[in-house]
Amino acid sequence: LSDRKADPGHRVRVVPAICEAIKGQIRTGASGPGARLPSTRALAAEWGVSRTTVTAAYEQLLAEGYLETRQGARAQVVRGFDPHALKSIKDQQPAPAMRLSDYGQRLLDFAVPPQSDASRLVADFRYGDLAAADFPTIAWKKAINATLLHRPSRLRYDDPCGSVALREALQGYLWRARGLRCEVDQIVVVNGSQQGLDLCARLLLNPGDRVVVENPCYNLALQTFVAAGAELIPLAVDREGMRTDGLCEARLSYVTPSHQFPLGSVMSVRRRQELLAWARRTGSYVIEDDYDGEYRFDMAPIPPLQLMDSGERVIYLGTVSKTLSPTLRLGYLVVPPALSTPCSKAKRLMDRHTPSLEQEAFAAFIDSGSYERHVRRVRRRNGDRRAALLAALSEHLGNQVTVVGADAGLHVVVWLDGVPQERAHELFERAHAVGLGLYPVGSLYLPSPSVSPPHIVGLVVGYASLSERDIVHGVRRLATMLEDLQATPVRNKHLTHQPSRRGPTAG
Amino acid sequence: LSDRKADPGHRVRVVPAICEAIKGQIRTGASGPGARLPSTRALAAEWGVSRTTVTAAYEQLLAEGYLETRQGARAQVVRGFDPHALKSIKDQQPAPAMRLSDYGQRLLDFAVPPQSDASRLVADFRYGDLAAADFPTIAWKKAINATLLHRPSRLRYDDPCGSVALREALQGYLWRARGLRCEVDQIVVVNGSQQGLDLCARLLLNPGDRVVVENPCYNLALQTFVAAGAELIPLAVDREGMRTDGLCEARLSYVTPSHQFPLGSVMSVRRRQELLAWARRTGSYVIEDDYDGEYRFDMAPIPPLQLMDSGERVIYLGTVSKTLSPTLRLGYLVVPPALSTPCSKAKRLMDRHTPSLEQEAFAAFIDSGSYERHVRRVRRRNGDRRAALLAALSEHLGNQVTVVGADAGLHVVVWLDGVPQERAHELFERAHAVGLGLYPVGSLYLPSPSVSPPHIVGLVVGYASLSERDIVHGVRRLATMLEDLQATPVRNKHLTHQPSRRGPTAG
Repeated sequence: LSDRKADPGHRVRVVPAICEAIKGQIRTGASGPGARLPSTRALAAEWGVSRTTVTAAYEQLLAEGYLETRQGARAQVVRGFDPHALKSIKDQQPAPAMRLSDYGQRLLDFAVPPQSDASRLVADFRYGDLAAADFPTIAWKKAINATLLHRPSRLRYDDPCGSVALREALQGYLWRARGLRCEVDQIVVVNGSQQGLDLCARLLLNPGDRVVVENPCYNLALQTFVAAGAELIPLAVDREGMRTDGLCEARLSYVTPSHQFPLGSVMSVRRRQELLAWARRTGSYVIEDDYDGEYRFDMAPIPPLQLMDSGERVIYLGTVSKTLSPTLRLGYLVVPPALSTPCSKAKRLMDRHTPSLEQEAFAAFIDSGSYERHVRRVRRRNGDRRAALLAALSEHLGNQVTVVGADAGLHVVVWLDGVPQERAHELFERAHAVGLGLYPVGSLYLPSPSVSPPHIVGLVVGYASLSERDIVHGVRRLATMLEDLQATPVRNKHLTHQPSRRGPTAG
Repeated sequence: LSDRKADPGHRVRVVPAICEAIKGQIRTGASGPGARLPSTRALAAEWGVSRTTVTAAYEQLLAEGYLETRQGARAQVVRGFDPHALKSIKDQQPAPAMRLSDYGQRLLDFAVPPQSDASRLVADFRYGDLAAADFPTIAWKKAINATLLHRPSRLRYDDPCGSVALREALQGYLWRARGLRCEVDQIVVVNGSQQGLDLCARLLLNPGDRVVVENPCYNLALQTFVAAGAELIPLAVDREGMRTDGLCEARLSYVTPSHQFPLGSVMSVRRRQELLAWARRTGSYVIEDDYDGEYRFDMAPIPPLQLMDSGERVIYLGTVSKTLSPTLRLGYLVVPPALSTPCSKAKRLMDRHTPSLEQEAFAAFIDSGSYERHVRRVRRRNGDRRAALLAALSEHLGNQVTVVGADAGLHVVVWLDGVPQERAHELFERAHAVGLGLYPVGSLYLPSPSVSPPHIVGLVVGYASLSERDIVHGVRRLATMLEDLQATPVRNKHLTHQPSRRGPTAG
């Protein structure tokens, strides 16, 4: 006994054991409401522990509300609660059904693509993935470590719109890289462009409001607006970008003018003017998603729509997901001045602010010039990958495919001229079987009277995560697979297959 | 001329200059829609540059949509757009008014406390701040660096609910530290508890739905529910926590059962049972905000409400904001199994997932045992601060104040027995003048028929960011200030002052 008392860790283990034992007695009714507990002396003797240990256990149960004491009297089990309820509610009745908000209900309709296991594929052309080897590990580590060592004396919540250091760095970067001029107060640092989209949807859309979108369009943008209860107005896309002749009364428009996702066209000046005039006339906002503005291979990047906006209608959205890593969750909005305060208040309630460490590290990374050097480096790397892809497509599939949108960005759209939509299902089945990660452009189309969905299968081919060798290998395998497919008669059961509206996303 | 052509950086600078010049001519109307541009040869001669440079400029303008070409003909300015609109819209009419969603409009009502400059204060007792010296910089750096070096081969979006490594680590931690058992799928990693609250509000509340809250209550939780359009049902708090006799039909309840914020009481077993039975009966959910569950100084932490929940009604909310840093933006929900999928879908649309680096580093930090060692260390450190605060309050203000809620957490509530609410404004003015950061508990009360707001001034005193020396110094200064205040007659103009409902928050 004395050994047990002398063990310094003993009390740590024995107090919970005594508490559990007493709770057990309360649960089983052995000590009912109002029952007096043994004196500390008696229980100490029973357990072979010191009275202090028992007192600690009683105090714990007192604090948890199982016991009550009155001046001078022994502790007793509290009255007014049902000890049986402590364990038996579960058996009495099933849990009530889940009740979600309208927002929650709308979410349930969205299919979420399974996380494919890229390592099991020979070549995974999934758009949005980057090669880890391209990440500037050493420089980023340096920026992170420097930030960790230069802490302020207090740790406290930062400005909801982001650290001033980062916003100043971004202000300079956006001017140098994109010709975009703005005040620091117009910049809102967000957790990747997805949070930027969500922030806009929440601030600007009521259920039932209309949102003009490109057709085809980035899937997660559509889901964000639909989740907000909005009605989508899909407008067709051609070589000049989104067609503006279908513009109608709406609260918001979402466009990718520098490099339409997924088709790759650049919005013409004419269309840009029409879109801005419409926004001004109707009081709508335009979200300009500049998701891959850093990747223009043949010339200077296309200037953002934001530059032409004299009406304070454009919300510019940028990200590091295509230059550094999608896992950093860093993005930024440049909003019209009037939206600064609402954005700040919303971001505060959404998650206070974006994590400080990443923000400060990114600020240091920009300020030291490392970011722009890095962007130039990965632009060259991805230029090489693109060249390998285009060469392989031309060599192995030259007369069977049409490639569009290759001037910029990290993906191209490859139309398989000889493969009708009816064979889409079969094609993706075969692709999976031979270890190819292929993603249909068809799933990015919205049903619309003005846009005929494509008759042939198209692929969104992302190449930023692959080596040139894997790209060439993948294209060769695609060529072989297409040959096999063409040699096989059409299977009847798939004649009616339509790509699902919200199937696997390319985003 | 040959010198300029030979300069390799020359073309980089001169292409934009040519583009700008041509855009200027288009804007001023010197080159109207349809106007033919000079041949590349002519313009090259004019600028004293190579034809390649001019061609690059033309291609840029072509891509931007200012020019168009036809087979064999010279480039011409595109037709169908208004060159004057390029610069003159701004002068024509003012920008349309900002139109926000109902959510956005509700946000505008919330006052946001200014970021106080703690360095200018002698002692800033702001709750929520931590001392940077307590942060485990070296261990965290080690965890971060190890994570940076062990990257997968592809950078891609992670699971919306969080990295499996972190959720497994949290599962073990919550069992060891809080006795909480759950499946990995029930854990949702969020950007701090604020995002957890927002996620719950979005998934569970429609405008007009009722939410039961404690009165007084954590300010940002209230704002989150009000922003969602909910109607608040504030219930009084006493020594057993939130009173359950006022429970009525509602969709959600928000409680802090282990350590009521701000008053510090522990919810009794009786009340816990009543709350859970109510939730089961009405199909409501209960958010259990365990914001400072790691800080119980005198005994083992109070077991979470979640443990008693057999009806899948409790959403448990934890954070590292009080143990590591509020700037990390790391928190976690443990949700009933039925809510896992809706949470995952919502988190994906909110921001894809919490940044991977922090998640992996935190997982490694827990797995190595560093986190629990750190929690023990900061618990001791804050125990020392608490002791210093209580001793100083007793010594300098013993008979003038009532201290409550000191058993746990990182703050106490100090009621200034001799200071009526009427003098609150004067008191906070004086505090600021003498360099004290003081925060009223009064601003955390909601107007309600069942709760009489306090007649005397109370302070939410956070101490986790201060040294013992500064704490003692601050209390002494508070004592002197109170003496001065008591010696001064009441100023009439402040007789009617009421603490603002959403004034400075203690959160």
